[in-house]
Amino acid sequence: MSPTSRTEDLPEVTTGPLPGSRRIYAIGERHPDLRVPMREVALSPTAGEGPLRIYDTSGPFTDPNVAVDIRAGLPPLRDPWVRARGDVAETEGRTVVPGDDGLKEGEVRRVPVFDRASRRPLVAWDGRRPTQLAYARAGIVTPEMEYVAIRENLGLMAIRERFDGEPHGAVLPDLVTPEFVRDEIARGRAIIPANVNHPESEPMIIGRNFRVKINANIGNSAVASSVAEEVEKLVWAIRWGADTVMDLSTGKNIHTTREWILRNSPVPIGTVPIYQALEKVQGRPEDLTWEVFRDTLIEQAEQGVDYFTIHAGVRLAHVPLTANRVTGIVSRGGSIMAKWCLAHHRESFLYERFEEICEIMARYDVSFSLGDGLRPGSLADANDAAQFAELETLGELTTVAWKHGCQVMIEGPGHVPMHKIQENMTRQLEVCHEAPFYTLGPLTTDVAPGYDHITSAIGAAMIGWFGTAMLCYVTPKEHLGLPDRDDVKTGVITYKIAAHAADVAKGHPLARLHDDALSRARFDFRWRDQFHLALDPDTAQSFHDETLPAEGAKVAHFCSMCGPKFCSMKITQELRAEAQAGLAQMAEKFRDGGGAIYRPVADAAD
Amino acid sequence: MSPTSRTEDLPEVTTGPLPGSRRIYAIGERHPDLRVPMREVALSPTAGEGPLRIYDTSGPFTDPNVAVDIRAGLPPLRDPWVRARGDVAETEGRTVVPGDDGLKEGEVRRVPVFDRASRRPLVAWDGRRPTQLAYARAGIVTPEMEYVAIRENLGLMAIRERFDGEPHGAVLPDLVTPEFVRDEIARGRAIIPANVNHPESEPMIIGRNFRVKINANIGNSAVASSVAEEVEKLVWAIRWGADTVMDLSTGKNIHTTREWILRNSPVPIGTVPIYQALEKVQGRPEDLTWEVFRDTLIEQAEQGVDYFTIHAGVRLAHVPLTANRVTGIVSRGGSIMAKWCLAHHRESFLYERFEEICEIMARYDVSFSLGDGLRPGSLADANDAAQFAELETLGELTTVAWKHGCQVMIEGPGHVPMHKIQENMTRQLEVCHEAPFYTLGPLTTDVAPGYDHITSAIGAAMIGWFGTAMLCYVTPKEHLGLPDRDDVKTGVITYKIAAHAADVAKGHPLARLHDDALSRARFDFRWRDQFHLALDPDTAQSFHDETLPAEGAKVAHFCSMCGPKFCSMKITQELRAEAQAGLAQMAEKFRDGGGAIYRPVADAAD
Repeated sequence: MSPTSRTEDLPEVTTGPLPGSRRIYAIGERHPDLRVPMREVALSPTAGEGPLRIYDTSGPFTDPNVAVDIRAGLPPLRDPWVRARGDVAETEGRTVVPGDDGLKEGEVRRVPVFDRASRRPLVAWDGRRPTQLAYARAGIVTPEMEYVAIRENLGLMAIRERFDGEPHGAVLPDLVTPEFVRDEIARGRAIIPANVNHPESEPMIIGRNFRVKINANIGNSAVASSVAEEVEKLVWAIRWGADTVMDLSTGKNIHTTREWILRNSPVPIGTVPIYQALEKVQGRPEDLTWEVFRDTLIEQAEQGVDYFTIHAGVRLAHVPLTANRVTGIVSRGGSIMAKWCLAHHRESFLYERFEEICEIMARYDVSFSLGDGLRPGSLADANDAAQFAELETLGELTTVAWKHGCQVMIEGPGHVPMHKIQENMTRQLEVCHEAPFYTLGPLTTDVAPGYDHITSAIGAAMIGWFGTAMLCYVTPKEHLGLPDRDDVKTGVITYKIAAHAADVAKGHPLARLHDDALSRARFDFRWRDQFHLALDPDTAQSFHDETLPAEGAKVAHFCSMCGPKFCSMKITQELRAEAQAGLAQMAEKFRDGGGAIYRPVADAAD
Repeated sequence: MSPTSRTEDLPEVTTGPLPGSRRIYAIGERHPDLRVPMREVALSPTAGEGPLRIYDTSGPFTDPNVAVDIRAGLPPLRDPWVRARGDVAETEGRTVVPGDDGLKEGEVRRVPVFDRASRRPLVAWDGRRPTQLAYARAGIVTPEMEYVAIRENLGLMAIRERFDGEPHGAVLPDLVTPEFVRDEIARGRAIIPANVNHPESEPMIIGRNFRVKINANIGNSAVASSVAEEVEKLVWAIRWGADTVMDLSTGKNIHTTREWILRNSPVPIGTVPIYQALEKVQGRPEDLTWEVFRDTLIEQAEQGVDYFTIHAGVRLAHVPLTANRVTGIVSRGGSIMAKWCLAHHRESFLYERFEEICEIMARYDVSFSLGDGLRPGSLADANDAAQFAELETLGELTTVAWKHGCQVMIEGPGHVPMHKIQENMTRQLEVCHEAPFYTLGPLTTDVAPGYDHITSAIGAAMIGWFGTAMLCYVTPKEHLGLPDRDDVKTGVITYKIAAHAADVAKGHPLARLHDDALSRARFDFRWRDQFHLALDPDTAQSFHDETLPAEGAKVAHFCSMCGPKFCSMKITQELRAEAQAGLAQMAEKFRDGGGAIYRPVADAAD
């Protein structure tokens, strides 16, 4: 079976711009070859204001000027930058074996294989450390660093307005400079997950002094989902705003699924390598060995995974602390390692071999996501001894990883009632030396399976405000099943809400521009502008059209909520027109919309 | 056309218990005729713990032992209590005219009319004040007060466990006594909305030292929905947990729709009388008069509306403060009154006639919900001069209403970024003398039309934690259209989540029992128990069954999220079984489930 013979089975992924939007690109200054993507929402002529720019994670899939072929993968935009630094060399690489996909020798692969053609893995040579942290410490502003600076600023070169906020100790500059990015990375306060073998990724930064990011989990399991579905879930997740995607596949075809995902992903990809290692030992935690795990790390690093969840904080001594919990250990990686520790009555090999793990990850610039294997799985277990003992270990490991030049973020809970959320953030900053925090929710109640995107969005918005750098989404299917495409979208939009609400509350200098543009559109009855500015334009319009589908209703000065006579906005507008003269100046206020304050924009077709 | 001739057009409403639940009743002590409803969720025999009781708002509709006939309405359970106090007398009442339904003289009513038979309105006689506040001040514990005490306690007579929390100044007793209820009402810190003409309602209390409550808005508008739909929306909303329902109808048939709703509602009904008053003057705010408004108050008070939103805080002098807002005035009532004030260049008649309004409302014990007509409609307008000027006026009016023996709560915003939420609560407590706060969300970002149940649940959970007594739900259709049945359910469940998360964070002595029971079920793989304990059992089960529909999967020790090999809970259980011996005692801990600590339960069939 040739690698390409089955790719016809791959369905087309979702492409095309969001309604009213186009993907534009800002040009680099230090690195003029940078073309930093963002989304521009055109407003109607009556708006009296220029288009709005929105941070864009969707990749080339939303750019009609880019022909996307998932069989070929995305263009390797970072490849020249990585090679130009001179710290990596091509390698033969590890040989892919059937066991990587959970197949027995001779067993036929039932899924199509991505054709890598002549491409070979890159790896550091001669003990070099090709990590963004190492470069930042050396005072080097990489193209990746300038890229994220422009991206965080949406290509703006000046801010027009300041917004209030309570940053809880975060320092949000008016505009992010490449030097600021370098400095934050050098201090360990931010990371750019960017494996040298994932040149397709558009650099992004995770840190408390930048926009709050969100992660979407995808991946097949033993009982559900196929390769094709997972690639579409990736494209779908980033269309709606996922900043990174974790492939949590646990069934067969893990290696092949991941290859398809990486080659088509413009966002960093994270994994939990212990899942695949466990498949290689037929699902028996006690049979795990350092050699199998090490081999898996190299396999995935060579493919281009940008960050690894490593549960090295689950130490033998911590396990008994979970004995009286209501829900024990709920992290899969955590329970696997706990079982290993008890079965062998010895310290975790992840902890004992941690320096060796650092050495491997530094060679490819794979970032650490230090896993919280002992996170609480219920309100009852929140902020307990097991959780905080592990957190201290993660802080200790952070220092070790930094010594090796590795970038690090720290995973956090989980299930936490509102009154215990802030302590999580405060402690993490303290014991983990301000390494970025990356939390799963937290869920603020256990009573709503089927709605855990909402129970957790409450906690996520709060902890994002307090300083969490990235929020791992939770979908409506959490605790019940694997998310399908609709669940992925719901999870992503819900977490975009949480992250944006956090940015606004922190006083992010550009976040509120979006809210205000939408609110003006709402007040002016510019329905189309309101739809186009919405996080989910399709749903906003379809909800409106359910009761008022007529074209005329898109310019009507009311909606079906109140009808024409009762619309408060309409009454206020009449009231203003009658009672005030000063309105004209308001419109003017937003009419500058000035090209001069934007960076030059590359022609979308070039 | 006879009143009953068209009632066949009314569809059946949703009846029957939630899966795994039954409605039970606890008996009063001071008032032995009290039968206080609650829901009991039976757990499987392997649970090793007794059934869980849950606060129940659903009314007789979920009790298979009660025959429901919406043409006859619910039994008037409070009628004997109200009459026994001797402060009300029957009255001829105001004559219902076609204009009450927005019909011209002679125009045929297109909707069925509820047959009141010989029932006449009650009203205070001889200057008496039949309000719960007046009774509380007089040291009288009414049946309503004992009822809510038992209801808040779920019929428990002792608590078994204490939970931590941060109450932000709230005082949550271990168990609520009738005397505590009386005292809180006497101080104005809590209200029992209970019009003497709405004897069908099951008493409930709104106050910061009780469970956080939620309100659902229903109602037809000029462009959508019918009487039948609204009655089903009521029944549907309370099935999922709405503690009160506001009928915000604005089109035709307002009077008739409201009659159907009141006669079939076991929860307090709120309205905004200015909406109907405006219909009576053909939608022209400037034509509103005190006489029309007064007539509408009496009309609705005689029908049995339990609380009125009165926008008496929108004073002439406040209106100019909204001039530079991004979204002006977004409250319908607020904009109507602002327009009236400006059109006549005089102070609001609601403000000027406020004492007369109090006199009317006291006669029926209609509670005030002092409307925030100047609430912010966008983040940009949050916590501004207009909003806080109105809040001060509401504080002043609270004192006036209290003087008349009226119960009062205060409405709050709206759209507020997270960092400005707490100030809303702090100021409200201060300037409104601790009268209960009743907020709409608040929405924490403006960028997600179509998902405003979520943008607002974040703010609602937070402000509920800080001390808001009732949260007005927001549905996914907010800003876009009228909610349908599905939206009502989504809104209610979302707000139950917010209210419950707030109760937990405050350290409510009974709230966490629910979370912990569900978490134990989850850890034990008691899938059916997990579904039955969920806020929405139907959705929880259907999500699970999408991938694992087989009956056997209901007892399987895994789900489709991870599959059998990767289930962390399963691994933890194995781990416990291997490594520990002390588990048996844990199960025992929950095995007492003791009848002795419960109040006597009335036989469901009696």
